[in-house]
Amino acid sequence: MIRMVNVKKLNGELQEYDPAKLRVSLKRAGADDKHIDNILSDVNKILYDGVTTRKLFKFVFSQLKKCDPKTSCKYDLKNAIMRLGPEGFAFEEYIGYLFKHLGYKTDLNQFARGQFISHEIDVIAEKGNERLMVECKHHKEAWMGTSIQIALYVYARFLDVKKEFSAPVLATNTQFSGQVMKYAKGVGLRLLGWRDPKGSNLALYVEKFKLYPVTMLDTLSKEDLKNLLRNKIILVETLAAKSEAEVVKVLGISRQKAKKVHDQAVALCPSCKLS
Amino acid sequence: MIRMVNVKKLNGELQEYDPAKLRVSLKRAGADDKHIDNILSDVNKILYDGVTTRKLFKFVFSQLKKCDPKTSCKYDLKNAIMRLGPEGFAFEEYIGYLFKHLGYKTDLNQFARGQFISHEIDVIAEKGNERLMVECKHHKEAWMGTSIQIALYVYARFLDVKKEFSAPVLATNTQFSGQVMKYAKGVGLRLLGWRDPKGSNLALYVEKFKLYPVTMLDTLSKEDLKNLLRNKIILVETLAAKSEAEVVKVLGISRQKAKKVHDQAVALCPSCKLS
Repeated sequence: MIRMVNVKKLNGELQEYDPAKLRVSLKRAGADDKHIDNILSDVNKILYDGVTTRKLFKFVFSQLKKCDPKTSCKYDLKNAIMRLGPEGFAFEEYIGYLFKHLGYKTDLNQFARGQFISHEIDVIAEKGNERLMVECKHHKEAWMGTSIQIALYVYARFLDVKKEFSAPVLATNTQFSGQVMKYAKGVGLRLLGWRDPKGSNLALYVEKFKLYPVTMLDTLSKEDLKNLLRNKIILVETLAAKSEAEVVKVLGISRQKAKKVHDQAVALCPSCKLS
Repeated sequence: MIRMVNVKKLNGELQEYDPAKLRVSLKRAGADDKHIDNILSDVNKILYDGVTTRKLFKFVFSQLKKCDPKTSCKYDLKNAIMRLGPEGFAFEEYIGYLFKHLGYKTDLNQFARGQFISHEIDVIAEKGNERLMVECKHHKEAWMGTSIQIALYVYARFLDVKKEFSAPVLATNTQFSGQVMKYAKGVGLRLLGWRDPKGSNLALYVEKFKLYPVTMLDTLSKEDLKNLLRNKIILVETLAAKSEAEVVKVLGISRQKAKKVHDQAVALCPSCKLS
């Protein structure tokens, strides 16, 4: 059966529904073909012209959660990174870990003396001759692209401190507009967004380094999450490497609940489990 | 009677209450000495340590309104400019008029082609060899200083379009932090704030050119105000130059109400009255 159905994106644009794309995203999360086939056929039953991507995502997520709970939290990764907000410090920590995995020595929230004023730099990342000035911009809404104003101010900040750095980087959890990409290319501002640039983006690194944020764990309450982030426990691997007793202590929750949380963390990062 | 009383500023800082300063601000609005003496002695009765400037202002404003209503709207000028928000376009128009009074030819919301991207410039102001790129930033809260990010992005925007302009200007209705002033001086970004720089600031030009915003008129309802701004009637002088019949037409209000509004406008800008 071929029928043309348009899906309404978060920014209001319409886009033809493409089951192949949905298959790729489910595959990427780790779902197996049988589950994917079932979900795609279920989607066909609820599709209608103008359905929002949010509604579609929610449906697919709930179906996947029923048949493959472990995979469903990976499917929710982008939203999990959204949930690192709103204060921004957790996302800075997160980007710090990412650069560590890329082989950089990192330093967070350090002041750098510029030609005219001092600047607090979110992440300083050093490797060999490179010393990067990384500015982090966390958006709590998926449709928020990074505005040109942000790209402009990051570059101007770099100009003031450029004696100390080799290049500026703007890291964000969403996308960049065409204008931002053009400007960044022109002035030499490096971008790190959710799926940009191709070959070296956040989505890709998250999977490659298993850089799973604790906001993926649906065994945690909102209060527990806040507690973890406040204690600078940003990654699932950090939690998985703790003992259950430590989880009890950090979160002030029951042994039984701590076991649930810890089990989910270990299932996502099995190599981090304490021996 | 000498007693030390601290006033709490909008940014939370304490400052010793200074009747001389209050006298200056009332004098500046046009109040006569007798009224000022009365108000200062009334203030002494309600003063207590830690009173907020907002509360103090409200009290002084209400006293002044009772004894000298025409002057009271001038005393409220800073707030009237706050009320030009929140969309920002009315403040851009307002800054446009200011540059016109300074002898510039102005153009609003024009696109300029930069080295890498195009930029929408709030106000372009030309005079002789000068061609200024004016970026307007309206804050709807008095305590909001203009952040360094804004100064940085305005300068970066200027760098991209600098073939077309002689200097960048950042115009705002509040103050600038020390950091912004230092940076701006360093890179050559001109600032225009509520009381900065000394000798050429918004507060000064407003009085000099009688650049009164329509938001000063307390004879207008909020809905009327929105209507005026939407119709790009930003200045009291524009309203004063209209006939009562035109005011009726623009605002869709009764002849009687229009007369009240028009009378207040003319009282503020008598030279603009239609003959």
